This record gives sequence, C-alpha cells and structure tokens, in this order.
Amino acid sequence: MAIVNIDGMDIYYEAYGEGEVIILLNGIMMSTASWQGYIEGLSKNNKLILVDFIDQGQSEKVDYQYTQDLHVETLKGLFDYLEVKKVHMVGISYGGEVAMKFTLKYQDYLSSLILANTTSYTNHNLKDVGKSWINAAETYDGSNFFKTTIPVIYSPEFYEENIEWLRKREEMFTNIFTKEWYDAFVRLTISAEDLNITDELYKINVPTLIMGSDEDVVTPLKYQKVIHEKIKDSRFVIFNNSGHASMYEKPYEFLIQILGFVSLN
Amino acid sequence: MAIVNIDGMDIYYEAYGEGEVIILLNGIMMSTASWQGYIEGLSKNNKLILVDFIDQGQSEKVDYQYTQDLHVETLKGLFDYLEVKKVHMVGISYGGEVAMKFTLKYQDYLSSLILANTTSYTNHNLKDVGKSWINAAETYDGSNFFKTTIPVIYSPEFYEENIEWLRKREEMFTNIFTKEWYDAFVRLTISAEDLNITDELYKINVPTLIMGSDEDVVTPLKYQKVIHEKIKDSRFVIFNNSGHASMYEKPYEFLIQILGFVSLN
Amino acid sequence: MAIVNIDGMDIYYEAYGEGEVIILLNGIMMSTASWQGYIEGLSKNNKLILVDFIDQGQSEKVDYQYTQDLHVETLKGLFDYLEVKKVHMVGISYGGEVAMKFTLKYQDYLSSLILANTTSYTNHNLKDVGKSWINAAETYDGSNFFKTTIPVIYSPEFYEENIEWLRKREEMFTNIFTKEWYDAFVRLTISAEDLNITDELYKINVPTLIMGSDEDVVTPLKYQKVIHEKIKDSRFVIFNNSGHASMYEKPYEFLIQILGFVSLN
Amino acid sequence: MAIVNIDGMDIYYEAYGEGEVIILLNGIMMSTASWQGYIEGLSKNNKLILVDFIDQGQSEKVDYQYTQDLHVETLKGLFDYLEVKKVHMVGISYGGEVAMKFTLKYQDYLSSLILANTTSYTNHNLKDVGKSWINAAETYDGSNFFKTTIPVIYSPEFYEENIEWLRKREEMFTNIFTKEWYDAFVRLTISAEDLNITDELYKINVPTLIMGSDEDVVTPLKYQKVIHEKIKDSRFVIFNNSGHASMYEKPYEFLIQILGFVSLN
Repeated sequence: MAIVNIDGMDIYYEAYGEGEVIILLNGIMMSTASWQGYIEGLSKNNKLILVDFIDQGQSEKVDYQYTQDLHVETLKGLFDYLEVKKVHMVGISYGGEVAMKFTLKYQDYLSSLILANTTSYTNHNLKDVGKSWINAAETYDGSNFFKTTIPVIYSPEFYEENIEWLRKREEMFTNIFTKEWYDAFVRLTISAEDLNITDELYKINVPTLIMGSDEDVVTPLKYQKVIHEKIKDSRFVIFNNSGHASMYEKPYEFLIQILGFVSLN
Repeated sequence: MAIVNIDGMDIYYEAYGEGEVIILLNGIMMSTASWQGYIEGLSKNNKLILVDFIDQGQSEKVDYQYTQDLHVETLKGLFDYLEVKKVHMVGISYGGEVAMKFTLKYQDYLSSLILANTTSYTNHNLKDVGKSWINAAETYDGSNFFKTTIPVIYSPEFYEENIEWLRKREEMFTNIFTKEWYDAFVRLTISAEDLNITDELYKINVPTLIMGSDEDVVTPLKYQKVIHEKIKDSRFVIFNNSGHASMYEKPYEFLIQILGFVSLN
Repeated sequence: MAIVNIDGMDIYYEAYGEGEVIILLNGIMMSTASWQGYIEGLSKNNKLILVDFIDQGQSEKVDYQYTQDLHVETLKGLFDYLEVKKVHMVGISYGGEVAMKFTLKYQDYLSSLILANTTSYTNHNLKDVGKSWINAAETYDGSNFFKTTIPVIYSPEFYEENIEWLRKREEMFTNIFTKEWYDAFVRLTISAEDLNITDELYKINVPTLIMGSDEDVVTPLKYQKVIHEKIKDSRFVIFNNSGHASMYEKPYEFLIQILGFVSLN
Repeated sequence: MAIVNIDGMDIYYEAYGEGEVIILLNGIMMSTASWQGYIEGLSKNNKLILVDFIDQGQSEKVDYQYTQDLHVETLKGLFDYLEVKKVHMVGISYGGEVAMKFTLKYQDYLSSLILANTTSYTNHNLKDVGKSWINAAETYDGSNFFKTTIPVIYSPEFYEENIEWLRKREEMFTNIFTKEWYDAFVRLTISAEDLNITDELYKINVPTLIMGSDEDVVTPLKYQKVIHEKIKDSRFVIFNNSGHASMYEKPYEFLIQILGFVSLN
C-alpha cells in the first residue's frame, strides 16, 4: 500500500500490524497479492511486510538484466527505510533463494530464516526448465505459458481437484498479464540462473526452518535436505501430498510453521 | 505438582502459566517428567497441563485391568475439577489414542486436537508387538525390557548418534523402574489392545493436526494417513529422519507445530 | 529392417533371434532405434520385435488425427502378418498405454504384460503438460522443444551427471528432427489425451509386471500403484533414483525385469 | 538331501538341476526348507544349491561361539567339495552379510552377487534388537520368541492379511523348535554382532544386484543404499509394500530379479 524509492527504483510494499517483523518473499510468479490468505494470521501479533521484488507486481520494471543480488540490496534498503532492525524472513522458491543470499550478506538483520521449497543451486535441470519457461513467456501467449509452467508447480492431485480454479488462473494469465509482465518474468528467471551458494550455507547461523513438499518436482525434497545438512541446527518439516507451491496447496500447514517458529525466535 | 482424586483414584498433574489450556497426553512409557523440555515454550502464553494417566508416573497404580476409556473419564474429571471448559489436546502414540477417544465422547471440550505418531486401530502386528513388550516387562529385567522396546521406538540414526544417552536411559530402566512400574506398564499395554475407532473418526469435527515421522516403524506414516483421510479438513505434517518418539527426536519441530496450531484455533 | 503394409499404412519393424516373442512398445518420443542397448540381451533366447508406431521413426506419417486405438490395430495386424500367436508385450509410458489397450481388446495374444512408467488415465495435469509439449513442438525449434520436454523426463541427478550426452541429444533435436517429425509428435500427443481405462483394468488377467521410478514426475509412482491395485495379482518393482525414462536411466535393472519375468511366463 | 563333512562339521545341502550354479544363503531364522517355492524356478536352467549354515536346519549344531567367517569357510569347503568354480550367490539378511564377507575373501568364485534386505554394519540399534531376540530365545518360549521377532520382520499389511498363516508359524515355533534350535539361534545372532565391512565394500567388483523393501524396518532402504553406493556399478531395485522378509512377501518379484540378473552374468 506504499511505494518507496530505493536506489532509484520504486518498490511496492505492504505493512500490517505491530510486533516483531515478519517479511514474506515471493516466488518468481507471485506478488504481494498472492499472500492475501496469510495477512490476518501473520499480522495479529506481528508486523507483517509484503514486498514486490523489482520486476514483480507493482514494483518497478527495469530494462536491464540483474542477478538476485539486486533484490538483496532492495530488501536492505527497505529495512533501513522502515527502520527495521530484525526480521523473521520467509521465502518460498525464488524468494527463498533471495532470503539465503540476504542472510549470507546481512545476517545481523535476521531473527530467523524460514525457507520453503527452495534450492541453493540452479542445476542443469532447473536451468533448462527455466529456459523453457522463458521461451513460453516470450510467446506472450498466456495459455501456453500457463501450461508450460503450472502443471509442474502443483501436485497432480491438487491439479485434478482444483481444475476449475486453475482454469480461472489460466484466463488471468491471458487477460491480465501484459508483455511487460512477461518480459519482467524473463529477467527474474535469468537472475536465478547462476545461483550456487551450497558451499556457503555453513556460514548461516540464525535459527532456520526448512519446509519441503513430498511431491515437489521443481525443487525436490533432496534439495531441501542439502540445505538442511549445510545449515547447522536447522529444522525441517515436510508437507504431505503437496507440490512445489506449498503456500497454495497447504496454506494452513504453511502458516502453522511460520507462527510456531516465529514465536520461538 | 498436585494430586487430585478423581472417581476414587489419585491423579497426578502439573499446571503452568495462564491462557488457553494445552494438555499433553503421554505415550505409554512416558510420564509428566518426559515433557520437561516443553514446559517453558508451552506455558509462556498458555496454561499448560501435564498429567499422568492411571498406572503412569505419580498417578495411582491399580490392581485391575481397564481399557483406555478409563483415561477418558479421568481427563473429563480433571477438566471439571480444574474448571477447564476448552482444551487444546495433544497426544502422542498411546496418548493420541486416548485423545481421539476423548474427542469422540466429549467433543465440546476441544479447542483443537493434535495427534502425533498414533493409530486408530491396534492391528495384529501392533498387538503382537505389545505382547512381546508385556513378556519383556514381566521379566522385570530393565536391560531386557529396554532392548525389546527402545530400538524400534527411535530411528536408527538417532539411536547411533545418541547411544550414550540411551545407555543412561537403559540404566534407569534397570535401577529406577520397579516391579510395580512394569506391572502397570502391562496393564497400560493391554488397555490399548482392542482399539479400533477408524470407522468413527469421521465424527470428529474439531480442528485437528496430525504429525507423523518418516521412519516411524511402530505407527508408520500410513496409519497417520488413515486418520488424516477420516478426519475432515485435518492437517498433516511429517518429520524428516525421525522415528516413533518424535517428541524426543524432533522436539523443536514438535513444539513449532503445537505453538502454531494452537495460535490459530 | 522391414516394412509391412497394414491397413494401408507402412509399418516399420525389426526382428531379432528366435524363441518366445518379446515386443517392445516405444514411448512417445522414441523409436525402434531407442532400444539399441536391449537387442542383444532380449534376442539371445527370444524373438525380439521392435516396431515404430504410425507417426514414429520409420513408420508412415499420416495426415489425420487418430487415437491410440489405431496402434492397437496396427499391432494386431503386425502379429497376424508375422504369424505371432503369443507375445510378451513390454510398453513404456505411451507404449504402456497402448499395451494396456491392446490387452483389453486382444487378451489372448498376451503371454505376459510388462508396463513401465505409464498411466491408465490422462489427468488434467498430464493433459496440460501434453499441450505445453505440443506448443513447443509447433515452434519447430529443437532447443526449445528439448528444454520443455526433457528436463521433466529425467531425474535431476541423471541430468546433472549426463549433461554432455543430453547436450548432444539437444543438438539432434535441432539438426535431425524435421517439421514432419514435430507434426507427427503432435498427433501422437493428442492421441493419448482422452485415455481413461482405469475402470477397465480389472479385466486384465494375464501375468503383469509393473515398473515404476521413485523420481518419475511425469507418471509418478502413484499412477503405477493404481494400475497395480486394479490388475489382479500383478507384480510391482521400483527403480531407485530414476526419473520417467527408466529405460535410459536404469537400462540394466530394466532388462533384468524383462528377462526374469519372461522366463517365468 | 546330502550331508558333507567340512572342516570336521556336518553340513547339509541340497542340489537341483544343471547349469550355472546359483546358491541361496539363508536369513538367520531360515533353513533350506524356507526356499521350497524357489526350487522349480531356479533349477530349470541352473544348478541350484541350498545349504544350511552351521547351527541352521539340518547342519551340525556346535558348542562354541564363532563369527560369520566360519560360514565363509564352510561355503568355500562346500564349493571345493562339489567342484564348483563359479557361483551366483544370493543372500538375504544374515545370508547377505555372509555373501559379502565371502565375496571379499574369495571374489574369484563369484559369477555374480545378489543381496537382499541386508546390511554391511551391525549398528547399535540392530545390536540391541539382536540382544532382545537372544533374550526371547533364551526363554525357550516359542510364542514369546515369535512375538518378539516376527512382527518387525513383515510389513503391517502382510501381517494383517496373512495372520492365519502367521499363527500357524507361531505354533511351529512352539511345537517344533527345540532348546537346541534356540541355543543355535543365539550363537548365530552373536556371530553377526561385530559385522562392520562398509569400508571394504569398494573392493567388490563382481556384478552385484541389491534388493531392498520400502517397509523393511530391520534393514531399512538406507542400509541398502549404503551398499549400493560403495559397490561400484551395483544395481538396485526396490520391492513396494514389503517388509524385511521380502522372499516371503514378494516371492515372485524376488525370483524375477534372480532369474533376470543371473541370465545376464
């Protein structure tokens, strides 16, 4: 509900409630709007911040290629602007990657780190998946883009049971997403291509919770286990019968983890 | 820290803190003392009640055989005595079985139900395991009893890494557990032999969270999934790399679930 | 090594060795050439038949849309032409679908049925994946097609370890696959869209072996388990650390199953 | 059907058929009689040898403690007596441990090595389970022994579905197993206590197939994966919905592996 200019770029964020700060970092196709169902639960006893990364949602679209390091600095700028000294940082998928990178650079800002369905390394498989997503985006055909990206993001059961909701989302991809959106999506995808921080994770010593899904085929459980092994004393829970988009498939279980973990740290 | 007489039997319980009530129900070999590490976290914003079932810990040992229904009435009596109208009831293993039975009879008392590593049916396999435990108990040989029961309760990894702690517990089984304790254990085991409430679970309509462990060989994930399927809109999370005794193997993750789920219900 | 005209269409097949007949049915992107590594092992004591479905490899490309039923008749025609009365029919993925359909119609021809990484129902998820593959094919861009289809077919580990071999295949997709190939691929994909034979599987009463892969994200283990439950007395084995293309990722284990199962039936 | 004296001890073995030699090594509670259902399938095209280890079945019972190395020499002696130069060695559980030890010492005798539900290291958990089995054996109470050992050997589903067959086996444990049998069982159990050959497995370079069960709680899949990682180019298949005693729970799938693997090596 506000825009702040950080390093010359307009960044959109929303803030709710009072208390220790929780910030939610979006997956690559998400925006602040994606967390609608989480606002009430997370702002009751906490200050909740939602934010669109550059090239997401209502934040500025740029005309050059960057890496995820840019988002790290944006977050730093936002925290300083808001005079936030400590945050519980929650990131899913792309947002989890940025969260790990932020933690490696600005560890003192972290009260705790919560990572969902993410990876510390963009392997060849993920990189090629990313390229197919870029190819689909560059057709500017919403239905094509939807069918290339969405089926692998949800579990087959969820897909089957929620096919009508998904078809509405598919229409949204066609009717609402603009050429500008797709071009931004391409830049975001490229920005994650060279991620490879597995060997640095041992430096993270803030309380960390890792969440994975048993049917996540984008960032399988194995990837979360690597992160769990590397971050000393990190905690790990698994969502049953869920695909990559756990925040959509298991919103209640997802919320429980944040509330429980934040209350302890 | 207090004993109350319910239906003619002395029941030991402990209470901590103020707020909505959380009660923790012990597994078969446990007692109020087993939850030491949970008291601080669960009593900060809630009233926490620990209780020994009849034949457990400091509650009365009896001289007749009963079923788990007896514990249901004990809990009802305790709640009425304490003027507790609503509880968040957490039960692990045997305690989860009692929790489901309590919920089926006194559903109005429940704010929420949290079940860990439990089952709704004592199948032939579990029944025979129970008999081997009874046989071991009736030797009154702590080391024998330990080796018959404990290896299947923990994951092999936890067992290997915590072998010294386990050896100390084994000594405790020999030095502290009395004939009275073993006789009580036998009655507790028999009291669960005929459990078979799977077909009634659909009647439970309080918010329910189910926790299972990927390496639980006493009550495997499959058993939790049955409960999850039967209790409408129940939630389900899995502990990675954990055996049956999740409250010992994954205390932090276990605590997160309770705190998060309770805060929502 | 031979072409036979069946129902007016040229069908390419290869035959090796003598003995009971084993026929291998291709996955959608495969051809007789894909089974090169299997010829020696399967023709030593058996007569091995490889065949390209219509629109695959060296068989005729057509100019109309069909369903998988067409392949069923082609196979029937081929068997009659070759005077084959009994076959051990092995099908992977698309080929497994055709194999089940063939068995449902011409059960008497079957000595045994071996199904790998397949499904009895094209659910919405698979259907949308199929559409994204069609979209990619219709760009006639080999690299784009490769990146849309191949990453989900192999396990991430296999992908990482065999990236150079995969890059060579990617070049082949660009240099060798023609517009004709891509158009044929589209028809093959569409021909599977309406597959839904789960409720008929109970009619299959030939010896059946089902093979699945623990990391198959196209036809997950769950789909194989459905088939296993529906086909009475079917057998089931799982390949560890393998994706959808088990015949490429686990060729040795794949071969063992065929040799062992065929020798018993 | 014959007894041969090896190193002063009477060893019982059976031989069937002609061809390359397959030898089946028993699990700890098994004997040559346990493989009844495998004889026809394995002797059709091969020479099948069954053998009782010292202290098993009809082989000599001894009055001193030994390690598994004794069985290694017995096998060597048997092969030399039978003038067998090359064998396909199949071992389940305890028999798999002996098979690995034999291979490490007499690798030249091996055409191939097939390991089912076994481990290369007796960890603290397994050691304590072993001690509980010894304690149960030393009561000479068949029903007690059965209930201590058998429930963890089978999957819960198999146990539930085959409870009548299991009850008959329980009677056998009471009526047929003698004090001599139980004393021999204790020695066999002790002989495996110090097994720890994980670090030597890299020396094995014969074709090796490893079979594991997804519900094996005695030697979980993780243990088989360790063996798979250590033995270069070994192959690995998993039985679905099976416990430790895969040769009883999945006899058909078990047989397929042997027939298929042997035919290739």
